Amino acid sequence: MRIAIAQTNPVIGDFEYNLNRIKYYADKALSASCDLVVFPELAVSGYPPRDLLEKKDFIEKNLESLSILINEIKGIGVVCGFVDKNPDDEGKRLFNSAVLFENGKILQKVNKRLLPTYDVFDESRYFEAGAECKSCYYRGEKIGITICEDAWNDEYILKKRIYHMDPVDLLAHDGAKIIVNISASPYHIGKKEFRSEMFGAIARKYKADFIFANQVGGNDSILFDGTSAAFDRQGRIRALAKDFEEDILFYDNEENSGILSEENIHYVSASDTESVLKALIMGTRDYVTKCGFSKVVLGLSGGIDSALTAFVAAKALGPENVLTVFMPSVYTSKENYIDTQKLAENIGTRFEIIPIDGIFGEFARFLPPSHKQSEPGITEQNLQARIRGTILMALSNREGRILLSTGNKSELAVGYCTLYGDMNGGLAVISDIPKTFVYELALFINREKEIIPGNIIKKVPSAELKPNQTDQDDLPPYDLLDSILKGYIEELKGEDELISEGFDPEIVKDVISRVDRNEYKRHQAAPGLKVTTKAFGYGRRYPLAQRYNRKNRI
Amino acid sequence: MRIAIAQTNPVIGDFEYNLNRIKYYADKALSASCDLVVFPELAVSGYPPRDLLEKKDFIEKNLESLSILINEIKGIGVVCGFVDKNPDDEGKRLFNSAVLFENGKILQKVNKRLLPTYDVFDESRYFEAGAECKSCYYRGEKIGITICEDAWNDEYILKKRIYHMDPVDLLAHDGAKIIVNISASPYHIGKKEFRSEMFGAIARKYKADFIFANQVGGNDSILFDGTSAAFDRQGRIRALAKDFEEDILFYDNEENSGILSEENIHYVSASDTESVLKALIMGTRDYVTKCGFSKVVLGLSGGIDSALTAFVAAKALGPENVLTVFMPSVYTSKENYIDTQKLAENIGTRFEIIPIDGIFGEFARFLPPSHKQSEPGITEQNLQARIRGTILMALSNREGRILLSTGNKSELAVGYCTLYGDMNGGLAVISDIPKTFVYELALFINREKEIIPGNIIKKVPSAELKPNQTDQDDLPPYDLLDSILKGYIEELKGEDELISEGFDPEIVKDVISRVDRNEYKRHQAAPGLKVTTKAFGYGRRYPLAQRYNRKNRI
Repeated sequence: MRIAIAQTNPVIGDFEYNLNRIKYYADKALSASCDLVVFPELAVSGYPPRDLLEKKDFIEKNLESLSILINEIKGIGVVCGFVDKNPDDEGKRLFNSAVLFENGKILQKVNKRLLPTYDVFDESRYFEAGAECKSCYYRGEKIGITICEDAWNDEYILKKRIYHMDPVDLLAHDGAKIIVNISASPYHIGKKEFRSEMFGAIARKYKADFIFANQVGGNDSILFDGTSAAFDRQGRIRALAKDFEEDILFYDNEENSGILSEENIHYVSASDTESVLKALIMGTRDYVTKCGFSKVVLGLSGGIDSALTAFVAAKALGPENVLTVFMPSVYTSKENYIDTQKLAENIGTRFEIIPIDGIFGEFARFLPPSHKQSEPGITEQNLQARIRGTILMALSNREGRILLSTGNKSELAVGYCTLYGDMNGGLAVISDIPKTFVYELALFINREKEIIPGNIIKKVPSAELKPNQTDQDDLPPYDLLDSILKGYIEELKGEDELISEGFDPEIVKDVISRVDRNEYKRHQAAPGLKVTTKAFGYGRRYPLAQRYNRKNRI
Repeated sequence: MRIAIAQTNPVIGDFEYNLNRIKYYADKALSASCDLVVFPELAVSGYPPRDLLEKKDFIEKNLESLSILINEIKGIGVVCGFVDKNPDDEGKRLFNSAVLFENGKILQKVNKRLLPTYDVFDESRYFEAGAECKSCYYRGEKIGITICEDAWNDEYILKKRIYHMDPVDLLAHDGAKIIVNISASPYHIGKKEFRSEMFGAIARKYKADFIFANQVGGNDSILFDGTSAAFDRQGRIRALAKDFEEDILFYDNEENSGILSEENIHYVSASDTESVLKALIMGTRDYVTKCGFSKVVLGLSGGIDSALTAFVAAKALGPENVLTVFMPSVYTSKENYIDTQKLAENIGTRFEIIPIDGIFGEFARFLPPSHKQSEPGITEQNLQARIRGTILMALSNREGRILLSTGNKSELAVGYCTLYGDMNGGLAVISDIPKTFVYELALFINREKEIIPGNIIKKVPSAELKPNQTDQDDLPPYDLLDSILKGYIEELKGEDELISEGFDPEIVKDVISRVDRNEYKRHQAAPGLKVTTKAFGYGRRYPLAQRYNRKNRI
């Protein structure tokens, strides 16, 4: 059987657009003489639709859209994800479903059995779990259809099984020789490798082809990498789609020669650094354009975070759509004038300079007496950041540009940032990138020629909100900080566990206290692009008014 | 059997504090010769702990706390909620549990069977569902223990049953004659009445006492009203606890005389207006104090929203802890000087005046050319709001005060508010109060004497960001707007459904478009106190980059 795998980049709720993408790739698959074309999970509506699922008319439009596909696509079988209604009186109203149809007839309908409800996933909020695991015949082959998480409960591969059923195992025992998995499986560093290993092992174990059709594109914080793939019955990868863009693959399970055909293996990133950079560029482009915008604005400080963000924005939207603004104060160093200007030249963005001292002086008239201090306190430092944030929002309003915020994950974690100041923005491009990884990305960008001026990479990080300030006056060194943060945030280690690993107890306590204390800032942060296993935002939900870890510490 | 019901106000994660509250009320119950004292759901940790549940050390500290209670409380049976570990390899790691213990021994442990996962609830994210429904003997009576949602699946009362099991029915059939329900059941308008009706009907149906022990207090956005109660075997309410404060009730199921004893029926609000006002006051007090603060600051505009917020703050924290700030511009009317000053006098708060025109002028120097317009455009209007927001944050930083934002639900719904401007704040006190209800609350506050100056209630609402501006220049009349918003947001009605109810199609389309377009603002809003069935924030989760309803509309 000749199978096409089409990884589409849907826009959530834009049924017309999504249908057109599906029809476009179905045509391509038909032209390539395929028997079957497979689309991602919820391809009709886009994933995740979240509470749009609670709107009755949204569900109806999704069903009407599916009907159009069933009536219009002829000559090829199609597997495609959509939202179905639960006909039973009891249970949740909806199913996360897949359908196999051909020439106007539905051959099988399947409801997702395993509903991820952790991290960024909320599927039990909306869906009733499917109970049935039956395979079906299609053009002489027995096919078992699974939806994303359905394939993520293998007893040998997963250390901890959170579900009580393994749909793949049941389908294989029901005779399926082709396991189809339609997914919206989000990207994080290392996930592609794990998926390949797991799907290959499943294919080998059950001596079945494994067809993985994954959504691609950014939907708010969640980035889908694509990298759809086909595995043969020995578990070898036989076809692989690009990462971070739409693509179509062809796989013929009768031509199992054991030799990889180069044309079926499309280029995917060769390193985590490359894949993260592509993820950020795709995520920025998709957020801005799916929100209906084309242009952005951001502040350049002379530091590496805003430089990286500006580079990503220019790649995502074209430099002509990026306005970069330098807003010096009395504390701004001369070198930052030079470095920012050079950066803007290198990446080709428009560059404006707006000094803030006059505005600061006007505010200060009404905020005695702490101004009489010899140097700016927290109030005055935040005030500078808020003046800059306000200027950027004025430019955003005036020119219809989305403001990009430029803070990294390390800063956001410990609250080394100003709410309503440098945190302002519609999208926080690098808020899931630890500071140490920001440097790796900058070096990667400069691998062939200097794009981010070397001095920006070399200089000691500083917020420049008071004289001779550096980040390390207030924070532990970034390599140490990032190690503790990874343990605390991504690996959910407690204070005792981190200390037992050899970290300095005082530093561990201080870092944990800062992370916990600053939950309120992150609660109001712009959505950020998720690239690690645990990002701030939607997938990390902490109470604000709480006293765990916090007592006797502030 | 003599049963005490203690509704505690826990602080999330403050095990020491929560234990002390439990021991305090257990002592009271013992002194009153009770056989049993019942505490709310997750009384040990506070509800909802959210992702704190993912920390191993949090779970351990919760179990250690429970052990302390079991070892220390003697002479009385205790039912109490805590988090248990799931000993099985398979399934989610935790249970939402209840324990009945007496004199150091656990008599029964029960795991919550029905896990709410909708609106503000995320229980399937953390917990494995309990499967067992067995009652147990205690001092000669057969008791069936349920946890909150466990009692919310009655086939006759609920139109749509989302679960496949009715624990109360199973327990009653297992012989339970006292149904205990430990809850953390959040407040919204009308819920108390529904609960009473439902619990009474359950008691009557199964000829069992029904003991409802509900958490009280505010935890971030979610407000718990308490109003714990006991229903006799005829379904009559025999004991009722106060709303919005800690309380203890005593109920003797052998004294079923059918006559209500006045001392067991504590005062609860007589109207929705009264209960909402109490809810806001409790929610503000708890948010501020549980965050470790005592003082707040807010801006007064001369309008009714900030007046109501200031009143609530003064009631919640004492007027001496509330700083009110008036920030006039060239567009500010003379009457607002007078009205705000009078309001601050009436409620007894400190009052400061900080004019913004000088600061605005400095910003304007760098933001040509749209200033040459005859009147301020959106950019300039937002700029004024952001200058005020920045001043308030400087006062917040300087004096360690939480900033309260003052926007109402109608504004927030249609985006008639400025992100990083008047939306600034740690808590959005009235962001779930529609404008029409703001007026009702103001009239209620003034029911005995004028506290909110009459002119503030009478004047035409205006943002005063350009000459002769009124809200109604940009928005439909508030009574119409609020009706459409209620249909769209709380009742999830679609455009067609609203139009078919007789609303003007153009207005419906415009309102829906505004609500959808402004999701990004609400994404960055401060937490607000939930009093309706559907509040913005945690319980309402929409994608930002989406095009449903939005196409061809902007």
